[in-house]
Order: sequence, then structure tokens, then C-alpha cells
Amino acid sequence: MSEQIVIIGGGFGGLYAAKRLKRAPVEVTLIDRRNHHLFQPLLYQAATGALSPADIATPLRRLLKDQRNARVLLGEVVAFDVANKQVILSDGVVSYDKLIVAAGSGKNYFGNDQWAAKAPGLKTIEDALEIRRRILTAFEAAERTSDPDKVREWLTFVVIGGGPTGVEMAGALAEIAHETLRNEFHSINPSDARIILVQSGARILPTYAESLSARATDSLERLGVEVLTGVRVTDVGDRSVTLSTPEGATTLPSRTILWTAGVQASPLGKALAAATGAEVDRGGRVIVEPDMSVPGHPDVFVIGDLANFAHQTGEPLPGVAQVAIQQGSYVADQIVRRQAGKRVAPFRYHDRGNMATIGRAQAVAEIGPLRLTGWFAWQIWAVVHLMYQIDVENRLLVLIQWIWNYLTRKRSALLITDREQPAATATAQPSLNLITNSGSLLRVSDIRERKSS
Amino acid sequence: MSEQIVIIGGGFGGLYAAKRLKRAPVEVTLIDRRNHHLFQPLLYQAATGALSPADIATPLRRLLKDQRNARVLLGEVVAFDVANKQVILSDGVVSYDKLIVAAGSGKNYFGNDQWAAKAPGLKTIEDALEIRRRILTAFEAAERTSDPDKVREWLTFVVIGGGPTGVEMAGALAEIAHETLRNEFHSINPSDARIILVQSGARILPTYAESLSARATDSLERLGVEVLTGVRVTDVGDRSVTLSTPEGATTLPSRTILWTAGVQASPLGKALAAATGAEVDRGGRVIVEPDMSVPGHPDVFVIGDLANFAHQTGEPLPGVAQVAIQQGSYVADQIVRRQAGKRVAPFRYHDRGNMATIGRAQAVAEIGPLRLTGWFAWQIWAVVHLMYQIDVENRLLVLIQWIWNYLTRKRSALLITDREQPAATATAQPSLNLITNSGSLLRVSDIRERKSS
Repeated sequence: MSEQIVIIGGGFGGLYAAKRLKRAPVEVTLIDRRNHHLFQPLLYQAATGALSPADIATPLRRLLKDQRNARVLLGEVVAFDVANKQVILSDGVVSYDKLIVAAGSGKNYFGNDQWAAKAPGLKTIEDALEIRRRILTAFEAAERTSDPDKVREWLTFVVIGGGPTGVEMAGALAEIAHETLRNEFHSINPSDARIILVQSGARILPTYAESLSARATDSLERLGVEVLTGVRVTDVGDRSVTLSTPEGATTLPSRTILWTAGVQASPLGKALAAATGAEVDRGGRVIVEPDMSVPGHPDVFVIGDLANFAHQTGEPLPGVAQVAIQQGSYVADQIVRRQAGKRVAPFRYHDRGNMATIGRAQAVAEIGPLRLTGWFAWQIWAVVHLMYQIDVENRLLVLIQWIWNYLTRKRSALLITDREQPAATATAQPSLNLITNSGSLLRVSDIRERKSS
Repeated sequence: MSEQIVIIGGGFGGLYAAKRLKRAPVEVTLIDRRNHHLFQPLLYQAATGALSPADIATPLRRLLKDQRNARVLLGEVVAFDVANKQVILSDGVVSYDKLIVAAGSGKNYFGNDQWAAKAPGLKTIEDALEIRRRILTAFEAAERTSDPDKVREWLTFVVIGGGPTGVEMAGALAEIAHETLRNEFHSINPSDARIILVQSGARILPTYAESLSARATDSLERLGVEVLTGVRVTDVGDRSVTLSTPEGATTLPSRTILWTAGVQASPLGKALAAATGAEVDRGGRVIVEPDMSVPGHPDVFVIGDLANFAHQTGEPLPGVAQVAIQQGSYVADQIVRRQAGKRVAPFRYHDRGNMATIGRAQAVAEIGPLRLTGWFAWQIWAVVHLMYQIDVENRLLVLIQWIWNYLTRKRSALLITDREQPAATATAQPSLNLITNSGSLLRVSDIRERKSS
């Protein structure tokens, strides 16, 4: 029987490992709890209504359909039994000869998990739809409110975290407020929205060159985003966020708070550590050997966001798609080389560059020694992100929507959807209350018509 | 101050009424509890993963953005105060001079509302995503099960209701089982799925010509759908549906039961009847005058699915988009004519035809005296449904996906998504239980490889 390779996680690392094993004399089982591969770098576009979820996600079965030696299992891994070489699922067991754990990362609220409901993060399609719902609902609620304080509360958007996701979210929010929704409301002017990007460190995009951080700050400020650096979040409430600034503490009323400040490795890192005796770092990542294996377990590999690989620079490699892709391919190759009795070289990461968009048609990019900004960087960003889309149809759909959005300044998917039926709220509020409580009632004639011509 | 026209509902009726009033000397307020207009005729394609929700839905604000005399309110109407000419929302009051109620219809379980959770219907985007989730999850669950009875249960899909929506759902399910998912599974063959269409009447598509019903039955059966006519549903359970057939009662094990059997007018019909003394029919529709107004209330109109208009043929007009569109335009025109002191003719419906698709590249259509079937009817169906898309970008996205799906037999949006986080189920099931309960465990080596070459 050919060697059984079990891969946990259908993100960049797991999927590229599986595909790289296409012609190897092995059987591949890819396990994921979701049925799709998600193109994470564009998830912020789904959260801001520029793309539909299906444009950036593809079923894993379809991606591996033509690979004869691969199968997909939809399942939830809960533990590892390395003595018996088994992965324990919530409803079964899968045996392996070689195991590749690529379970990725989730949100990190740094011990304040109670903030999660108030300030959602952006990791899954459900997260993106929830953020989209909150952003659009905020403008609608502001339109329905006559109290100026409440309008201000609804029109204040706070993005916590100045990494690429935070920068991209803040830029997209500015575009929505100033371009997309222009002239769509009567009582409010969407351009009155405040968009505040909060970064605890001294500069946004801290892993980029300083000149690019400065340029990104400048671009965001020209879009109307307030960029606060050196500011930490000390509390998140239902209708406000408390900040610790160099000048002291301040509480900012806001109904839409988004969290992009930290990632935490999947809990499977700790589960694997418990099973193998491996060490995890503070972020929950498994510290791996130079060949991406777990110390003392040469048949168990950890790759991508879940791995702490510090052998190259002394620092762990960043949790980006490129690292996961290269590690996935590397581990697949290594398995084949070991089978063939060939020598294996340690993993080496080749940094192909980093880039982030800033609103409409602006970006910053580092590619080797190059530092690019502006429209040209944005063009490169767009080409690279289209190239890495695995599904050809999605590539086409994304391209068309980008061109359309660029030309019309519209966004394709500005829907407020929810599994909760709005009817439920109506029955909970008898109309009698509303009529007697007439002090707070809204009348059409009360509303100042401010629609610009 | 110009006349205040308040429209409730942004479906076909309400939206076409609002747009028709673009150049009239009135102020239009369109109230909906959702922020988007939904192109209902293609909703089954979102439920079966052929299109994304945003491809068939457009924000009402965008659709009315360029109409200076129109505004959109996101709100939930709970009652009417016709004496004071006010619409009561869950959080406010809106005054009107003329009122157009176009609140549409929901699902009708004919007194068995407890079936709703077991057999979802198809009215909203959330419904479509829930149905999509159930269909795809059923194939995944069948793949993970080794008990042949359970596999059969998961692979039995029952569509209740033989109207256009039921026919289109059954055809799309057959296409998914026999084409889209082919070769994507290892333990099951998706083509083993049973798709059963249950119709209580003597024939499916009962409002169409008999020859078209026969042709649709024939087309469905060639796709592998079992068409049961003269069969009523007497119970819906968690894992089965009980049918009353001419031969007696029978219980059919199935994990995926879809309900397209009946529609029920919005509860706002009864609320309006209570406020105006109007009559409602058994389906909750308001019986209207020849000019679509409520008897005794010439300033209150009811249109679309919520109206029972029987003045033309003696039978109420059907709840289809064409009727709503024509009634919306008619009422708008009439309001303008009345302002100008002109005489108003009663509403007359011009039947432009009916059509339904049956799986891939087949359709039946009635257009005046013409009875069309097959590929040609499907082409007409596609052109008509693209033409009626209000948003140009959506028209383009739908067209591209149809061409792509036609050429590749893929579907764009086969995602299992849910607001519930899958992680929650994992923590609820401690791994210890799973290991001891090894009798039901699934092992990779147990699974017969049936992937065809």
C-alpha cells in the first residue's frame, strides 16, 4: 500500500502541499472543517462589499478533483495520537504515515476574548459577512437617527491594528464613505464618517520599509482616515473603544469597531505539542526543525501560520501566504526525496515581496530592493493577486468586478444579510409602545433634506 | 409641499412603482426591511450554488440614487393608521398622502409551521444560503458515513411542490448530483442520489398548458428526477417525510427536504385589512378594487403578491413578477393622472408569458399562443431573465457565470457557510468519547475507493 499522507487544513500551505504530491507514489488525504479554500488576501474586499464570498473561495473537492491520489474529508480534528500515527476527528479517526499540520491561525484578542463580539476580526467568510453587515447597518442606522450624538456614534468606524489588513480595511471604508455611498442618503452625508486606524506601534505596516509606512500614512490621510500611532486599546465596549494615548486615556464613541490587531495560532498547535512534546511560542505556534518537522517526530510536519520557523533569520517567518505556499511545496518535495533515499536540504524562504492596497488605486509594495507606491504599485498588486487565484473562473469574476468598480466607483456586493430574520424584531416590539412613546418618533417631515444635487 | 407617496416593499411591484414616479411632482419614500431588491426568479440558482447572492440582489439605495424625488428607509412596518394617514414602523412613524403596499409574500406551510425548520422554503437570500448549505452538507455527510441506510438517507432529496420553483430546484439538484459533483467523492457516487419531486395535484406546472407539464415531467425524468403527482405530504420529520399516495401512506427517509409548495401573503395584508376594513382571502391577500385601491380608501393601494385582483378573469392574478411590475407601473401612472385631473381606467394585466428552466439547457415556455420547449425555450428564458436584471453589472456577472457553467458544468458558488462557527461543535465533543466509541469510527482504509477514471 502506498504511503498515506494526511494534511490538515486546506489553506495555502495544505493545498499547495497536496497539489505538489500529484505525481508522487502516495495517497493524500486533505482534512478541513470548511469545504473551501479561501483566498485570504482578498477577504477584506468581501468584508467591504467589493467582491462576493464565492469569488474568493473555491471548493477543495473541485481543486483536487483531477488529482487521482488525493481525497478530501470534511471534518474537525480534535487531537493527535502520534504513538499510533492517528489523527482524531470529532467523528472518526484517520491513520497516517506522514502528517502535515497546516491548520493556520485565528484572531488574537490578547486575553480579552470578551472583545470578540464587539470588535469582530477577519478570518472567515462568516467574519467578512458580519463586518459587511455592521458597516452597512451603521450608515442605515445613522440615516434613521435624529440625535446628532448618535449619528456621530454610528458614523465613527475604528479599525484596530495597523498591519496590511487594517490598512486595507481602513482604505476601503474611506472609499465606501466618500465614493460608493455618495448621494445615497438624505439625512446624513456618508462623507461625514470618521474612520480611525489605531496602531499600538510607532508606525503602520511595521514590517515594511519606513518610507512605505510614511507613504501609506500619507495616502490614508488623503483619503480622510485618521491614523493614530503609539495608541493602545485598553477597553472595547458596546458603543465605544477606550484608547491609551501618549496624552492619556480617551474614550471614543463608536458603533463599528473592527479588530485586525493580532493572530493566534490554531489550538491544534497546542494539541500537537501535547501529543509530541514540542514547544509552542507565545502565539501558539509550534517551534519546528530546519526541515519543518516536529522535534523527535520526523514524520510530523507543521507549516504556514501554525509553524514557528526561526532558523533562517533568527526571527520566526511572518504568517503570510508566500511562506505557507513555499513550506507546503517544500515538505511535499521532501517527502518524495526521502522516499527516493535522497538527501534533504533545510527549508529556505525566498521573500518574493510584500504589498498592501490603500483604498482605490493606491498601493505600497516591496519587491526585493524595489520600493513602489501609488498607481503603479496598485497595478502590480492587482496582477499578483489575480495570478495567485487558483480558480480560473474566480480570476475572471474578480477581474471584471475590479474593472467595473474602478470605472463606476460602485461595489458589487453591498448586501445586508443575516440568518436572523428581521421579522423577529418587529413582533418583539408591539406598535402600541411606539405610538405612545411619541417623543422619540421619527417623522418624514422632521428630516432635513440634505441630498446634494 | 408636494404629495408624499409612501411605498412599502422594494420587490418588483414597489420598485417599479417608485421608478415610474421619477418625473412626477411627488416625493417618494420606499420602505423595506432589507437593503436590497432581490431578483426572485433566479433565487433558486443561488440556492444551488450557480450564482452568488450579490449577483441577484442590488441595494435599493443604489437603484434609486439618481432619482431626486425618492428616498429609501430601512425599516420594519408593523401597523397602519389610515385615519391619520400614517405608517407605523417598529421605530418610528411615516406620514403619507398616497400609500402603496407591496409587501409581497412568504412561505405557507398550511398550518404546519413546525415543518419550517425541517423543510426550508425559498424566499430570501438567507433561505437560499441555508438550502445551499443543506444540499452540500448532505453529500459531505454521506461521504463520511459507512452505514448504507444512512448514506441513502443523506442522498435522498425531496422537493415538495411542483410549481416553477419546485421544478427548477429539482432540475438543478439533478444537475448537481449527476454533473457538477461527478468524480469529486471517493466513498459515494453523487449520481446515486435520489431526487424526488412531490406534487399534490395531477400534474406539475399546473398553471401551464398540459403539453408543457408533460414535457417538463419527461425532461425531469430524463435527468433522473422521480416525479410524484397526486401525492400529498402529511408529515415532515427530522429525517423523513410522510406521503399520502393513492396507494396509501408511505414514509420516505430523507435528510434534505425543501418546501416550495405554498405562499402566504405578508402579515401586513391582515394589518392593513384591520386598519381599513378590507377583506383578505384565505392566502392573506387583500381583495382590491379594479384600480388596485383598498375599498373605501382610494389613497391606499395594494399591488403584487399581496393583492387579490380578480376583476379581469374572475380568478386572482398569479403571484409572479410580471403582475407586480405591471401593477406598480399602473398605480404610479394613476396617481399622476389623478393629480392632473384625468380619468383613470381599471388595471388590466397583459400576460407576457411564463417560463421555467429544467436543469441544464432545457426549459418550457408559454408566450401568447406559442408553446416552446427544449434548448430554444431555454435560450429565450436566459435572454428574458438577463433583460429583467435591473443592475447592469449583475447582468454581466450572471451572463459570464452562465456561459462558464454551461461550458464547464461547474457551479460558481458551492460554499458551505454558516454564521455558527464549526469550532464550537468540536469543543462540545471531548475527544475521549470519540476514541472509546470506536465501533462507529471511520478509518481511511475502510473506505472503498470508487473514484472512476
